[in-house]
Amino acid sequence: MRIAQVHPQQTRVGWIGLGVMGRSMAAHLQQAGYALTLFTRTKAKAQDLLDAGAAWADTPASVAERSDVVFSIVGFPSDVRQVILGADGALSRLREGGVLVDMTTSEPELAKEIYEKASQRGVHSVDAPVSGGDVGARNAALSIMIGGDAEVVQALNPLWDAMGKTIVHQGPAGAGQHTKMVNQTLIATGIIGVCEALLYAHKAGLDIQAVLKSVSGGAAGSWSLTNYGPRIVANDLQPGFYVEHFLKDMRIALQEAARMKLALPGLGLAQQLYTAMEAQGDGRLGIQGLQVVLAKLSGVDWSSRE
Amino acid sequence: MRIAQVHPQQTRVGWIGLGVMGRSMAAHLQQAGYALTLFTRTKAKAQDLLDAGAAWADTPASVAERSDVVFSIVGFPSDVRQVILGADGALSRLREGGVLVDMTTSEPELAKEIYEKASQRGVHSVDAPVSGGDVGARNAALSIMIGGDAEVVQALNPLWDAMGKTIVHQGPAGAGQHTKMVNQTLIATGIIGVCEALLYAHKAGLDIQAVLKSVSGGAAGSWSLTNYGPRIVANDLQPGFYVEHFLKDMRIALQEAARMKLALPGLGLAQQLYTAMEAQGDGRLGIQGLQVVLAKLSGVDWSSRE
Repeated sequence: MRIAQVHPQQTRVGWIGLGVMGRSMAAHLQQAGYALTLFTRTKAKAQDLLDAGAAWADTPASVAERSDVVFSIVGFPSDVRQVILGADGALSRLREGGVLVDMTTSEPELAKEIYEKASQRGVHSVDAPVSGGDVGARNAALSIMIGGDAEVVQALNPLWDAMGKTIVHQGPAGAGQHTKMVNQTLIATGIIGVCEALLYAHKAGLDIQAVLKSVSGGAAGSWSLTNYGPRIVANDLQPGFYVEHFLKDMRIALQEAARMKLALPGLGLAQQLYTAMEAQGDGRLGIQGLQVVLAKLSGVDWSSRE
Repeated sequence: MRIAQVHPQQTRVGWIGLGVMGRSMAAHLQQAGYALTLFTRTKAKAQDLLDAGAAWADTPASVAERSDVVFSIVGFPSDVRQVILGADGALSRLREGGVLVDMTTSEPELAKEIYEKASQRGVHSVDAPVSGGDVGARNAALSIMIGGDAEVVQALNPLWDAMGKTIVHQGPAGAGQHTKMVNQTLIATGIIGVCEALLYAHKAGLDIQAVLKSVSGGAAGSWSLTNYGPRIVANDLQPGFYVEHFLKDMRIALQEAARMKLALPGLGLAQQLYTAMEAQGDGRLGIQGLQVVLAKLSGVDWSSRE
């Protein structure tokens, strides 16, 4: 199971999943000179990359058949299971010594299962979820959190470097996903504070712009406050990051926490509040839309406030 | 009630309260050339400033008698009430046209009450709580959140500038305190996320330093994570910022929120968890010590983990 350093002239790259994130990420690899073979549910989303020379394949298995390294970034763990372990999944046709790289935010236990099943077929597997959103993907500035065998992770360095800025090997299979859960726990709990703080400021009759000036630069400061705060104030609830995907992440984190016998009351609260948001029909808004739910709790119509 | 711009040669400054914050802040005014008259509960804490030329007074009233502008920064709202409105309080002896500046984190309603009672005596009053901690106080880098009349706030500009970096007039009396409550709501809720995230990382067997490298720079990043994270990892639970003072702040914020008929579930959770921390005898630790409480919830002895 030795693995050679990847190289644009020698390494055939497969890519499964061309959502907002995947499209930008695959484009960076194409621009770096890698020959791409693509599969995604909606072929139209592949058109730009196909026009620029990528090949199309009708199934994940066909992608794998023509690739040395196969990336996947899809929606839910069930999708990951299908595109990698399913009957037409990538693992079924990847050559011995090939590498599976799942960049979906998914279950650590599934990452370990894929690693085990890949190993049995002489195939490498790493889990490599990312943080940084659509902007980070576009600017190749993602944080990539990687779990898997060190030599495999290192061999893929040119690929990581083409997509991300903060590349950290976190440990064995599943460690990338676990690290992403740490990331999401921070975001989930922190954003409750952002929403409650802005709601308090509004009810207290403060000028929210002036408040943001006072509180953003110090001990109360955060990426969420700086980036979501102004959007919330402007009633801009468009995704960025979909509530329904965030709920998936929180479900995974809480499920893993339960498995480890760990109580996380802050994350639990976030998951409950976002569940309410989805129940109210807002699962396709951005996660900053939690503001509306919290406001409504106290009878405040956030979007129509003066 | 017109007010002249303050000036080191003309403005006599009184200072009540020389805790960790007050000492550094008063020293900056002294270095800027203002003549100081001091009162604090423990006279020994005034020695450095007295050695450098400040005068001592035996009561807040005596401070006020010899001052044009009287600052207070004490512990609890009850202390504020005593040193300003009490029988020997500063308001009883401050000259007409003088200014009271309470920089304690205290109740917005009390700030309004002081403003009203001061007005009745021809005295100005502003509330000006700060954020930035002992380091911010030492480096004159505080965020100062100010409530009161605009002309008074402006007249004090040279004094604000000597102590802080982010100086924002937030609105009428009480608005400074309300803004500080926004600040504390952000910190309280955010720190739950920091503690839970680190606990998850530990239980999942991750290398926490590597995790911090992946998550600190992106959407999960915050001042709390960057500053408290490493202390928590190193078991450094020393204050910084005392839990018992933080509990006071959360009590005020929740009390004001209840008055405004506002539900803040995240802040409520933080207050409950910190109440548990104080109940366990840890009210004099720093607020990052919440980690120990959350770990103990799930049977993890944080300080003795390997």
